[in-house]
Amino acid sequence: MAQVWTDPTRLAELNAALARLHLRVHQPGDPPLMTREPESTVQAHRWRWREVRPLFDRLGELVPLERGGERRTLRLTNPGLPYGTTHTLWASLQLIYPGEVASAHRHAATALRFILEGEGAYTVVDGAPYPMRPGDLVLTPAWSWHDHAHQGSAPMLWLDVLDIPLVRALHTTFFEPYPAPQQPLSRPVNESMRRYGDGTLRPAGDRPSGPASARLAYPWARTAAVLHDLAELGADPHEGVAVEYRDPATGRGVLPTMACWAQLLPPGFVGRPLRRTSSALYHVVQGAGATTVGGERLEWEPGDFLVVPPWTWHAHETLGASEALLFSVHDRPVYEALGLYREERA
Amino acid sequence: MAQVWTDPTRLAELNAALARLHLRVHQPGDPPLMTREPESTVQAHRWRWREVRPLFDRLGELVPLERGGERRTLRLTNPGLPYGTTHTLWASLQLIYPGEVASAHRHAATALRFILEGEGAYTVVDGAPYPMRPGDLVLTPAWSWHDHAHQGSAPMLWLDVLDIPLVRALHTTFFEPYPAPQQPLSRPVNESMRRYGDGTLRPAGDRPSGPASARLAYPWARTAAVLHDLAELGADPHEGVAVEYRDPATGRGVLPTMACWAQLLPPGFVGRPLRRTSSALYHVVQGAGATTVGGERLEWEPGDFLVVPPWTWHAHETLGASEALLFSVHDRPVYEALGLYREERA
Amino acid sequence: MAQVWTDPTRLAELNAALARLHLRVHQPGDPPLMTREPESTVQAHRWRWREVRPLFDRLGELVPLERGGERRTLRLTNPGLPYGTTHTLWASLQLIYPGEVASAHRHAATALRFILEGEGAYTVVDGAPYPMRPGDLVLTPAWSWHDHAHQGSAPMLWLDVLDIPLVRALHTTFFEPYPAPQQPLSRPVNESMRRYGDGTLRPAGDRPSGPASARLAYPWARTAAVLHDLAELGADPHEGVAVEYRDPATGRGVLPTMACWAQLLPPGFVGRPLRRTSSALYHVVQGAGATTVGGERLEWEPGDFLVVPPWTWHAHETLGASEALLFSVHDRPVYEALGLYREERA
Amino acid sequence: MAQVWTDPTRLAELNAALARLHLRVHQPGDPPLMTREPESTVQAHRWRWREVRPLFDRLGELVPLERGGERRTLRLTNPGLPYGTTHTLWASLQLIYPGEVASAHRHAATALRFILEGEGAYTVVDGAPYPMRPGDLVLTPAWSWHDHAHQGSAPMLWLDVLDIPLVRALHTTFFEPYPAPQQPLSRPVNESMRRYGDGTLRPAGDRPSGPASARLAYPWARTAAVLHDLAELGADPHEGVAVEYRDPATGRGVLPTMACWAQLLPPGFVGRPLRRTSSALYHVVQGAGATTVGGERLEWEPGDFLVVPPWTWHAHETLGASEALLFSVHDRPVYEALGLYREERA
Repeated sequence: MAQVWTDPTRLAELNAALARLHLRVHQPGDPPLMTREPESTVQAHRWRWREVRPLFDRLGELVPLERGGERRTLRLTNPGLPYGTTHTLWASLQLIYPGEVASAHRHAATALRFILEGEGAYTVVDGAPYPMRPGDLVLTPAWSWHDHAHQGSAPMLWLDVLDIPLVRALHTTFFEPYPAPQQPLSRPVNESMRRYGDGTLRPAGDRPSGPASARLAYPWARTAAVLHDLAELGADPHEGVAVEYRDPATGRGVLPTMACWAQLLPPGFVGRPLRRTSSALYHVVQGAGATTVGGERLEWEPGDFLVVPPWTWHAHETLGASEALLFSVHDRPVYEALGLYREERA
Repeated sequence: MAQVWTDPTRLAELNAALARLHLRVHQPGDPPLMTREPESTVQAHRWRWREVRPLFDRLGELVPLERGGERRTLRLTNPGLPYGTTHTLWASLQLIYPGEVASAHRHAATALRFILEGEGAYTVVDGAPYPMRPGDLVLTPAWSWHDHAHQGSAPMLWLDVLDIPLVRALHTTFFEPYPAPQQPLSRPVNESMRRYGDGTLRPAGDRPSGPASARLAYPWARTAAVLHDLAELGADPHEGVAVEYRDPATGRGVLPTMACWAQLLPPGFVGRPLRRTSSALYHVVQGAGATTVGGERLEWEPGDFLVVPPWTWHAHETLGASEALLFSVHDRPVYEALGLYREERA
Repeated sequence: MAQVWTDPTRLAELNAALARLHLRVHQPGDPPLMTREPESTVQAHRWRWREVRPLFDRLGELVPLERGGERRTLRLTNPGLPYGTTHTLWASLQLIYPGEVASAHRHAATALRFILEGEGAYTVVDGAPYPMRPGDLVLTPAWSWHDHAHQGSAPMLWLDVLDIPLVRALHTTFFEPYPAPQQPLSRPVNESMRRYGDGTLRPAGDRPSGPASARLAYPWARTAAVLHDLAELGADPHEGVAVEYRDPATGRGVLPTMACWAQLLPPGFVGRPLRRTSSALYHVVQGAGATTVGGERLEWEPGDFLVVPPWTWHAHETLGASEALLFSVHDRPVYEALGLYREERA
Repeated sequence: MAQVWTDPTRLAELNAALARLHLRVHQPGDPPLMTREPESTVQAHRWRWREVRPLFDRLGELVPLERGGERRTLRLTNPGLPYGTTHTLWASLQLIYPGEVASAHRHAATALRFILEGEGAYTVVDGAPYPMRPGDLVLTPAWSWHDHAHQGSAPMLWLDVLDIPLVRALHTTFFEPYPAPQQPLSRPVNESMRRYGDGTLRPAGDRPSGPASARLAYPWARTAAVLHDLAELGADPHEGVAVEYRDPATGRGVLPTMACWAQLLPPGFVGRPLRRTSSALYHVVQGAGATTVGGERLEWEPGDFLVVPPWTWHAHETLGASEALLFSVHDRPVYEALGLYREERA
């Protein structure tokens, strides 16, 4: 959309007059206002667990988790961005030692945890504690009070994913510390999980509503069982066996800005490429494989993390004789809600 | 709304003229067009299992289940109605012997089964077989092909509930026999149950829609477990611990015309009265108790059936030292969909 | 679904035992439980205005409208039914004289008026008066207080349509008289019409909800204009130019149990046949034509009324050189809400 | 959330190791990750029409609108942002001369026009032309083909508002030029306006769906009439008489990312302050007044534009003896869809 200009001198005068009034006209040297297709600065990237894991000992030694240092985390920073894991997602790896407390607060950003190592810690959400084990997913929806405490005997590690870059882009950051390090345990253990656990049988007359899931925790044992059950019914040529975590009360996704998926790629699976306008962060729970993203082949093994940028062709495959299990977080609900979601399948 | 009349002779002439044109004016002797509150002809009634059960042997002996005699059932007929169990619900008890087939058909009426005795039979719904065990709920939504076959070794009994009186009142009966006694088993065993599981993890991208549940079978073991879990979170003073069976894909009830509930009444429970514009059929799965309906106290024990008429005060209680488990079917979704649902709690 | 019986004597004994317990088995002579297609007892019928209109003078003379005689109406009674215009709809023609009041009450049945003759009367709905002119539609949703008063100088006539037979079939009649003949005019004239008049511009932040339309009155002038506008965009081969009255706040139909339509049939229109599971009452606002219903050709002219029974082929045509304008009421929302709606187009 | 550090040297080593792996830990000097409340860089700003209007003559003279120079626009650039009118909205003023064509294209960004001056131009959306007059609103939803042509006799000016900064922040820019300067006029003039009218009477059986309004044009005459009608029913102490433009088919807002409002502030109106997480651009259609935004009082008169940043207290008032009429565009639907909308009223 280049402009055709007729008189440079008078144009310069016009531009000066416009600038004084905070107006602007497209200039000859300006890049085009729009591109045919998205040209995202988000880069595909893989973090190898075998490289990252050893750093946690030094991190734990050097960074204390005292009041004031509210979280002890390593952020996954995208090589193509000033901050953030993708342009909407903010992932970090959190380390907590027995006896420590990650103090209570709430924020407009939505958060989730996916447990990597250890046992004995729990997250408290609005008064109800949710114990955490490897593979479990725990949600802390926007503006819910939450804190973490660790009563086990060995360090715990988990993945945090928040929509911080999105909330920042929308200029809508809110944060509030709780008046004490921990909120009181005012509600039963695993309350929402027990109350809404089963979307097939809900308390009669109960009509939960709200932008986030009525159920806040999803244990891995159930996820793995569902994936294996579904695997018997067949696999999608692009995604293998893929399930989305759902709000059992409504059937919708669990969070208004992030979708959570679990995937089983059968042994020998070679997926066909697809692309979406949304971005994603993958985490390898089990198995080995490779994902070809935008032409680059990135191999992965248990514990690794992988970013797929927006509108980038990608295809998963398994390596070796075993199935692979992936957990992933997608900003797709944002695109769907705003009428901006597209996907293409090869 | 009595009319005040002035001239009987001329009125008679007018009435005759009106009648010829299929018009009518309210007559002095007519009952009022509307009553302050519903005056339903549906009667509260209890069927005792210990009286009903012995009749099945004679029924089985005398009524063969051949092609042409498509179902072998005892209908629960309400004492206050020309037919039907309530004014909208049609319940019957079905008996099937090993080796028999209840042949395939479909109809506009919606149906469900709740298994009472036996093992080894299965219902085929649109090509997928659903094995049945005591306490299981199996749905055959409107216009789905369905047939039952029995490959076990002992007679099976189950409760059928259909919305036949409603479909009749709406003049919308459709029925079609399948061209063969049985439809082919073209889909996996328990398919919808495996695919839509418990609503917390759904195949990604799958958007089931339709008036009835995406999941067609609900085993009792899970229902009992959920009731006991929820019982730890407390009980409602009117209903005890009550859950509604839900479509895991949407969180809505399972059928557009009938709601299915399971209830746990704790030992010593004495419920407060409530009434609804909808009617219900209860079945006692376990335990003993009594329901006071419209002033009449009806005791019940395992296997019994009980009708609660529309807009009738009723209250449940348990007897003895054990909890009671009830299954029930309500026409409440009809009232909710049409803006006619009301309830009142004492 | 005939049963095959083996032993008449023992069967008789069994039947007697069953009857004592309010159980019943299908008997050899019973009609089949279901039919292939609906066999409705509702009959197609046409009421000729030129026959009906003269009766109103005698009606007015003989039937006073005093407190106690709350409405002065002629009911359109279907020849095939014990009462009602169809199995769900109850239509009557109401006459009110200047100075009279049709006193205030409310009921669970939903009602609408379509004005036939006269000016100067108004309906008060929950405190807001709605003046009525020929062709106007005024809604009184379930359980809204309503009364009619006439301040004009000539008799007024209108069509009332209620869902009384449906409400009766659902055993859910509620009725309450207002403590005085008239409710106070506590809200502005035509309030809901002014507030929601335009579904394209709604008060910001206003989220009306409820089963019935946020707007309660629809003047004919607008309906006629819309029909003529749309006629320029083409006509449906079955229905001509058909619009449904809508709740401007939600885009849904105006009432949960009845849909209101207006139709323009162009000069020379010969519609193709269609059938629906729902029933309808048509009223001719303007023009002449004929509707062939179930093989019977019923001609009509302005003022006439016509019933189309469920699942009955029907086709409209115009006669003469003029367009025809029809108003109609359908119980179709009931069928749609309950998953029982079907239609077929030839 | 400052971190407490123990050993600068070893920390530096750790940071270097982290950086190599694209990991990062919060550093002592980093700004806090979150703020108590949004601290938006968007600035309140007012553009005075009497300063802006004269520039159009020079603009028209110097910037030709040829194929290649697709639009002739002045962008309203927020003083606090690198580009854009707010962080999500992109407003520009477009000038077109008789005989010119702003050529056909489509893009993922959603656009709307609000006409400022002139007559005789029309926008073609997906084949249907929409003539434009001052005050009219015309929508071009995401990915709809659109072009503008001018067949009048005097220059035309309008306001364009697009969600370009939002679409950019989501890395989802798509753009496609039409193969010719103009698309063929394949559909009737004002088609969607005629088909979906005012939402009270919709073509029977028509179920429009999609993220944007089924109706694409909203003439000012109707908007002004509705505002004056509603003014008789009262005014909100914060907003005066405010209406939102709606999709007549669903009652929802017109676009998934932008809400359009029209407002009438009565003579002497002094509004109370409120703030929202969303941002807005106001345009003065008629009257004079002032808006106090974040403590700064900005007076306005017809033609002016005004930005209200996110989470900023603002209050409108009228000056002089006349009412004021405002048109405004809000990114509020984005916040509502993502669970991030809040407002506070003083």
